[in-house]
Parts: sequence; C-alpha cells; structure tokens
Amino acid sequence: MTAAVDVIRAKRDGAVLTDAQIDWVVDGYTRGAVAEEQMAALAMAILLRGFTPGELRRWTAAMIASGTRLDLSGVGRPTVDKHSTGGVGDKITLPLAPLVAACGAAVPQLSGRGLGHTGGTLDKLESIPGWRAAVPAEAFLAQLRDVGAVVCAAGERLCPADRKLYALRDVTGTVESVPLIASSIMSKKIAEGAGALVLDVKVGSGAFMRERADARALARTMVDLGTAAGVTTVALLTDMSTPLGHAVGNALEVAESVEVLAGGGPADVVALTLALAREMLDAAGLLDADPAAALRDGRAMDRWRRLVRAQGGDPDAPLPRAPHVAHVRADTDGVVGAVDAAGIGRAAWQLGAGRARREDPVSPAAGVLLRRRPGDRVRAGDVLAELHADDPARFAGPAGWVAEAVRVGPTAPPPAPLVLERIT
Amino acid sequence: MTAAVDVIRAKRDGAVLTDAQIDWVVDGYTRGAVAEEQMAALAMAILLRGFTPGELRRWTAAMIASGTRLDLSGVGRPTVDKHSTGGVGDKITLPLAPLVAACGAAVPQLSGRGLGHTGGTLDKLESIPGWRAAVPAEAFLAQLRDVGAVVCAAGERLCPADRKLYALRDVTGTVESVPLIASSIMSKKIAEGAGALVLDVKVGSGAFMRERADARALARTMVDLGTAAGVTTVALLTDMSTPLGHAVGNALEVAESVEVLAGGGPADVVALTLALAREMLDAAGLLDADPAAALRDGRAMDRWRRLVRAQGGDPDAPLPRAPHVAHVRADTDGVVGAVDAAGIGRAAWQLGAGRARREDPVSPAAGVLLRRRPGDRVRAGDVLAELHADDPARFAGPAGWVAEAVRVGPTAPPPAPLVLERIT
Repeated sequence: MTAAVDVIRAKRDGAVLTDAQIDWVVDGYTRGAVAEEQMAALAMAILLRGFTPGELRRWTAAMIASGTRLDLSGVGRPTVDKHSTGGVGDKITLPLAPLVAACGAAVPQLSGRGLGHTGGTLDKLESIPGWRAAVPAEAFLAQLRDVGAVVCAAGERLCPADRKLYALRDVTGTVESVPLIASSIMSKKIAEGAGALVLDVKVGSGAFMRERADARALARTMVDLGTAAGVTTVALLTDMSTPLGHAVGNALEVAESVEVLAGGGPADVVALTLALAREMLDAAGLLDADPAAALRDGRAMDRWRRLVRAQGGDPDAPLPRAPHVAHVRADTDGVVGAVDAAGIGRAAWQLGAGRARREDPVSPAAGVLLRRRPGDRVRAGDVLAELHADDPARFAGPAGWVAEAVRVGPTAPPPAPLVLERIT
Repeated sequence: MTAAVDVIRAKRDGAVLTDAQIDWVVDGYTRGAVAEEQMAALAMAILLRGFTPGELRRWTAAMIASGTRLDLSGVGRPTVDKHSTGGVGDKITLPLAPLVAACGAAVPQLSGRGLGHTGGTLDKLESIPGWRAAVPAEAFLAQLRDVGAVVCAAGERLCPADRKLYALRDVTGTVESVPLIASSIMSKKIAEGAGALVLDVKVGSGAFMRERADARALARTMVDLGTAAGVTTVALLTDMSTPLGHAVGNALEVAESVEVLAGGGPADVVALTLALAREMLDAAGLLDADPAAALRDGRAMDRWRRLVRAQGGDPDAPLPRAPHVAHVRADTDGVVGAVDAAGIGRAAWQLGAGRARREDPVSPAAGVLLRRRPGDRVRAGDVLAELHADDPARFAGPAGWVAEAVRVGPTAPPPAPLVLERIT
C-alpha cells in the first residue's frame, strides 16, 4: 500500500519517484486522500531536491490525468496557443489571438486572472462591457470553429490537481521551483488540446524570472515537456525590464490593443505581437500566412470584434474610465532612460488594476499610462505618466514609485532587443 | 509585517532565521494563524536546510513559550527527570522513577503514549487496574512532594506548539530531523521544570537512531540545549540492537519491572536502571545516595507501591493476561545469538501492544515474552519465545518475525556493552 509519507520521504531523501508513486500521490491529492500539509511538505522537497526529466514528464501527465484532456480534432483547422509567463503591460494575447485566427489557425486560450503585480488576460477583457470569461464546453468548440479564437477561463475539469496545487504553493513558499512551474503551465496547456504551443518566457525586473539563465532553464524544461507530449513547442525569451507599450491596467490595455489591431499602437507591442504570430503560424504549419498584412488590412480587427461579440461583449461600447487622474512630471530636462517594469507594475497594482489576494476585485479603469518611453526627450515639468484610479487616496504610494521607475538622464539608453533567444 | 511565506522562503533558501521570525512563526502556528500546510513546508525546509545552534535554541525557547513552564521550586527536594528516545522492551522508567525518589530526589515524568513499534510508558502503566495517567496540576505538585515521583500525561498547557507540530511531522515525512527531534524533546523536558535531566539515547535496530554517529549528534544537540536553558543535562548512548529484558508488551513489562523492584529481574534491565539512577542522582547533587541498596532493601518497591496508589492504581491487583499464548520454538540445537530488537518490536506491536495510529487502542496483555536471551544454550524444540494476544488471528505474522529475530547458531555471540558512551 502506498502512503503519502513514504512518497514524501523518498523525495526528501533524494530518491527518484516511481511512476506509480507519482500517479498515486497526484490522484490522491486531487481526491483529498493526500492532505494539504502532505502536499506542502512534498512540494518543498521537490523544490529543494528537484525532479529528473522522467519524473517531471510523469508528474505533468498525472496532473493532466487528474482531469479531462480536450479533444480539438473537430475544429477543422490547425490549433495553436500561446502562453506568457507574465509581464507588466503584457496585453499581447488581445491582438495576437484574433490576428492568428485571421491567418487561418484556431487559438484555444484558457487564461487566468492576475495575482500580484502582473495583470491577467481575463481581468483585462472583463473591462469590455458585457464580455464573459465563462464559455460552456459546447460553445467553446463552436466558437473555435466559427471565430477561430476563444479566450476564456479554464473549466473545473481542466487539471484540477493543478488548481489545488497552485493555490497551495502560493501560501507555502513553494512557487519558485522550475519543475513545479513548468508542470503547472504545461499540464494546463497540454490538456487544452492544441497541436502547437508558443511560450513567451519573460526576463527582467517585471518578470517572474529576473535572470536570463533561470528563464532559459524554465523555457528549456517547458519545451521538452511539450515536445514529449506530442505538442509542437517553441519558446521565445523576451525582455521584461521595461513595460510593454504605454498602458498598464485593464481597460487601458484593451484600448492599446485595439490601436494595434487598427494598424497603429506602440512599436514594441506590434513587434512582439508579430514575432509571436509568426512563431504560432509556423508551428501550426501555416508558413505562407502574412500576419503583418492581416494587421494592416483589418482582418485581425474584424476577428477581434467577432471574438468580443461571441463572448457577449460590445466592441463599440466605451471602455470604463477612471474618475481620477494624477500626473507624474519630469523634474529636470533630459532623456528618458530605463523605465523599471517592476516599479510600474507595483504602481498599477496598488492603483487597483491588480489583486493582492485571489478573492479581491480589480478595478477595470485603474492603472498607469506612460506618456514617455525610453529614449524620449523631455523638459522639466513635462508629464511622464498618468495615474488612473477610482479613489484619489490611492495615488500617494504609486506616484513616488512611478517617479522613481521613470529615470530621466542626460543621454539616451542603448537600444534593447525585445526577443532575446529562441528555444526549440 | 511578518508573513509565514517569508519565513518559509528564508529557510528554504538557506538563511538563518531571526529571533523575531522564529517567535512569530511558532506563536502563529500555536494560535492557528500559520496554517498546517505552511508549517509542513517550513518543517521540510528545516529538515533539509538545518538550524544553527542559535536558531535551535530560539526555536526551543519559542516552543516552551507557547505554553507554561512549570515551577517546581516548592517541591522541597532536587528535581531530576529521565528521557529515553524509545526502545523495544524499554520499561526502565517504571523501576527507575520510584528508585530515584526513594534515594531523595523528586522525579516529574511527563510521558507519552506509544506510536509504532516502541511502547509508551503511559500505555504500560495503564495496564495496572485503576491507574490513571491524568493528574491535575495541584495533585501533581503534592504527589511530587509526598511520593517523590509522578508519571503522567502532559497537560494541555505544556508546549502546545510541540503537540501540534509532532502530529504534523508524523504525517508529512518531517520526523527525521535532529533539530526538530531535539527541540521537541527538550522543549517539553525544559518546560517540565526539573533542575536536571538524564537522556537515554538508544542506538540500534530497535531504536529510532540506527547509527551511533546519528545518536551521538542527537545527544550532543540535546545536552547543549538543556545546558543552555539552565538544566544540568547528561546523555548516555545505550544499545538497542537487542530488546531490554524478556518482556515486550504493556502488562508483561510492568510485571518485569516489579521483579526488578523486588530485587530480581533480568540483568540488563537492572544494570541500565542502576546506571541511569546513578546519573540522575549525581545530576541532582545526591552523590551519596546508593540506588543498589534501595533496590535490595525494598525502599524502591515501597515507593513504587505509593506511586501506583497515588494515581488510583492497585499494586496488588492481578495484571491482565492474554487469553491466547503461542510458542516460537528452536528448530536446531545451538546458542542464541543476536535477538533483533526491530523484529521483536514489530511482532509485539502487531500482537496488539502498540498502535499504528494515534487513535488506536492498545491491548494491555498482548506482547512477546522472550524465554531465551543472547548466549543461552537451546535444544531443538525448546520454546524461544511466547506470543501473547487477545485474538489468535494475530499470531500469523509475528510468529515468523520472532522466529527470524531470535537467531540460533553454533557459538555464543560476543558480549555487547549496554552503555556505549556518556555525553555531557
């Protein structure tokens, strides 16, 4: 008879867990036969002792097997998804999913909500009046067939083991483990049923991984897991020392995404959207598709409008606007140097765009709008950034953090590449 | 503001916890503000990362401060206690406490119940008709003053943090940690209020520590903790490869203890009782006391009878006897060699003397009575051991384990010392 304490002790002492032990403990945890405190001790042992590639593949498979793996074979076009490890101002899914759909692939995006200083895709889309994150299973397949993209909340049956474990790791200091992060992300993405997957692994102050070597290790691990599970998987390491675009906050980011879909928008958001679209289309086997053209000629925008409408949203309704706006101004003449993503993310979060606890509400209108970006020349007194909030009492901390994050110096910073590495 | 996850992460990453962090997390756990799963993750991190001596002292102090430290200053004689890390047939507390009391010290023994293959002192004494393990606080001090010894269950207010943590470690694979074991034992023993403490740290197959180096490290750690807390502390490392005495089981061990108090009993039980009594009396400053004389002349027996009566027991009542007895016989002529303590302990446990889970009942009568000891000459067919059980269905496994544990060979084993080392 397997007992939880035997599995914990084996990993604690550095042993390689057997397939049977992994299957048993993940299933037992899902059913409640393995207690939260037992999984907490096991997660800490995994964090400190690691997993072999074989253990990690089995652990990921057991997480998938805790629920149902979707079957997208009836969709009638190649399926491909993207996952980002999260960054400040990372609204890329919003223009990207309709763009890739417009180019002939189907994008089944099961997304999450934000926690901490990076926002969640569902939180952003929920700022659109009427838009709903919940899509029933039958509607999901129909929308994927008709529109080519769904961005919605994962159902109860998708990796229930991961849902429990994710919440547990959050409170037990067991988040920062490459195998546990990789298996959490990849179990959900593999269970989602897409044939191909592009990973956007962020590096820098605004990302979960601050060091490039750590990000590379995570990307490598995830690519290997996806490939082993029969999913064509590619990862890009991309810079997250600076926020993406000007807008950080839910409705603010939707507005900026719509600019991109209209053929405008900030250069970095456009560039990353196109780079990821290229990877997704290649992975889906759509080598001839031209995403830049689809942005230019309105096909991507058309797909966006259909996507929003299919989930109850009104693409023409005005977005929520914050009743209170404060300005952060330059105190000297000069050139904007680095804009620290961590500081801007923290400010947007405190203004109300993000949540500290899972059960907190978010403000659709709150956030930071950067009026100047790295390399822009400014005069003393110019507005560097707008702070948006529902309550002016929220400005105090964020005003200082934004002033500190946007550095003004005598010379322009060297240009920084956005895509740092490609891992297959 | 301290958060549990910050303390967990600090220890996980190898940092030395601050006094404030240790005080906060132990107090929070006692109050329920730190969740079981958080303490489980922290315990695993402590097990794998360790504690500095300073952290361990503070952790132990915080465990003591979670409850009330007893004040025995009104007892009117030197107070001294003994703690054994647990062994098979280890009934030494039963003759030892009244013996040391008869020699002029006061022995406040707060004891536990058995879990797994080693029995608990309270389980043994509860086989005496009428005997009660619960002693109210006022009666405790009065009995210590009048009789000179109390053997009872710890109250709710003695190290409540340890009570919770002990149960948690049991199910989370975090038992085998020298700092966690040492702080668990020593926090209770220091809180008990005795001025001196003698530790019997067992080594061998029937002990928690199988390797002498591990036992030595645990003894060293505990002696240092006791000394730092102002308690005169001495440890003996003693052999636990062979069961102590002939009897393993609750009433069986009480009967053997009474033999020792009557001036007879197995040589090893007498020798260890006297060795520990000598250490306790020396530590209590009673250098002139003569425990061998107190055993011989009936003073220890008189004290035993008073101790049993003071807690409701009848020292003259017949002890429970098992309705079913089976025999394990020698299958060749020869000499009894090693008697493996682990096998005998497991057999007694399965016969009903021990419990697998905290809530299980124990049988007062079940156990193993060794009729032959290492060095005894036997003929094929001689009875090597008796198995006692309430239900004959229990004999199957234990009969084989006992037959395997009692080895009969051509020559006598070399004599093995009982006390291996003394650590001060």
